[in-house]
Amino acid sequence: MASPGLSKLLRVGPGPVDLAAIDPRSTPGLPKKVGRDPKEWSRAAIAEIGVELFRQQEMLFASAKEHPEYRKRVLMVLQAMDCGGKDGTIKNVIGQLNPQGVHIVGFGKPTAEELSHPFLWRIKRALPAAGVVGVFNRSHYEDVLVVRVHELVPARTWGDRFGQINRFERQLVDEGYELVKVMLHISPDEQRKRLLERLEDPTKFWKYNPSDVDERSRWPDYQAAYADVLERCGPDHAPWYVVPADRKWYRNWAVANLLLEALGRLKLTYPPADFDSAEERRRLEGERQVNSS
Amino acid sequence: MASPGLSKLLRVGPGPVDLAAIDPRSTPGLPKKVGRDPKEWSRAAIAEIGVELFRQQEMLFASAKEHPEYRKRVLMVLQAMDCGGKDGTIKNVIGQLNPQGVHIVGFGKPTAEELSHPFLWRIKRALPAAGVVGVFNRSHYEDVLVVRVHELVPARTWGDRFGQINRFERQLVDEGYELVKVMLHISPDEQRKRLLERLEDPTKFWKYNPSDVDERSRWPDYQAAYADVLERCGPDHAPWYVVPADRKWYRNWAVANLLLEALGRLKLTYPPADFDSAEERRRLEGERQVNSS
Repeated sequence: MASPGLSKLLRVGPGPVDLAAIDPRSTPGLPKKVGRDPKEWSRAAIAEIGVELFRQQEMLFASAKEHPEYRKRVLMVLQAMDCGGKDGTIKNVIGQLNPQGVHIVGFGKPTAEELSHPFLWRIKRALPAAGVVGVFNRSHYEDVLVVRVHELVPARTWGDRFGQINRFERQLVDEGYELVKVMLHISPDEQRKRLLERLEDPTKFWKYNPSDVDERSRWPDYQAAYADVLERCGPDHAPWYVVPADRKWYRNWAVANLLLEALGRLKLTYPPADFDSAEERRRLEGERQVNSS
Repeated sequence: MASPGLSKLLRVGPGPVDLAAIDPRSTPGLPKKVGRDPKEWSRAAIAEIGVELFRQQEMLFASAKEHPEYRKRVLMVLQAMDCGGKDGTIKNVIGQLNPQGVHIVGFGKPTAEELSHPFLWRIKRALPAAGVVGVFNRSHYEDVLVVRVHELVPARTWGDRFGQINRFERQLVDEGYELVKVMLHISPDEQRKRLLERLEDPTKFWKYNPSDVDERSRWPDYQAAYADVLERCGPDHAPWYVVPADRKWYRNWAVANLLLEALGRLKLTYPPADFDSAEERRRLEGERQVNSS
């Protein structure tokens, strides 16, 4: 079940944002009737939204295939604290799409080559081609988040980046991109719970990193950095959404809705035939026997 | 329900291959009990195999994340006549995996830049990184199939390519790739049926190309070219599988099995912890309050 007005409810900024006032356990826009098992409800709702996501994606793909200069594009940007659920969101929401029509890029610690270029260099190289739904797992925003919190560059350098990011995203919009910028918002308690889960399950050890615990002491610094991002980089053409993400089932449902709304704004259609279908049918039905060897 | 011996049943070559003797409607290796609705059975079986595919893929991803020099890799190569079902296979089988851990590349008509390089240039650039399941939708084999049938290069040039392909794939195996080369085998009647379906449904017009009908007159030439590929490029370390593909439900089930077998041959495991989990638990449980702001 889709909830068409969710983007209005979850939008934050531009201007002052009080992240502490957004309860990570809340469930804005949730329909009244989710029943006794919200997880099961969410799975079913996402499967239903998924059918429509798939159709929208196919129209995007088909249009770009017929017209390589096709201008409608979509790019989702996912940001979150560690354990915030970026990977789970991709698995559960983006997993509804045709894998051939998605382009997912994760941005980790920059390589030496990446560091030798301006910070947007690796981002620009990773933009999705026409017809393909792009998903960034972390993004250029790390360059005003982790970089700021750890003082990896002078304050003036990261300070200049807000403007650079805004101009870059304005360019993307000029080029036809519909941006879906999502911050998955979790609480420190939920993060601890998830870290402890990773420690209890040997199939999750690989997701655990001892430095994540050290990072927790900087929680307030990160929240302040996020608030600045939300305040300063969310114009109407490239807004930020904050999705309460302590409840994974709500998070997945909300992100699926935000993506569906974004695709809906593109007003996609299937491209018309560029051939005479009656004539083609005659050719196929009238052809001489085609032998298999 | 997985069928562990399918790779033996579907393997063809090296040496003489009589494609005409393989019935595209046959269902080798199918369990006795598929019930009255084979489509429904196949969906359920693939979902079950999908859970294990997902787990195997996660182990591959996790291992490579911990050890970037990790040598185990997997690459599926899909080839087929037009309407053979490559896209449907990717949607239904590869769609079972985590989209973040797959790298799907389609090879269309080469660009001017690609043509200015040796034919394997664009292939080498598209190889999946460690930890990621690679899928080629068409491949270097087009350079001895469509290129041969349409005489796009002199016979001597494409003739030399069999050896080049064999040496290239030997290199891939040296580098740790497990290759899963699949030809989806359909009949000309099934192709006509699928082309007619595309003409009847406006949401499928974009998949229809009038030149596909012209290509049908070359069916025997393509089959002969495929037979040569199967005969000459299928050593034990890089075998070919021919999947009868007139029945989509069988095709999907068979390809899911072949991929699962390939991942199984890699004998993947989750990487062990590189930290002291008891100590980490103590750190998390003993930390001072982390404030949300």
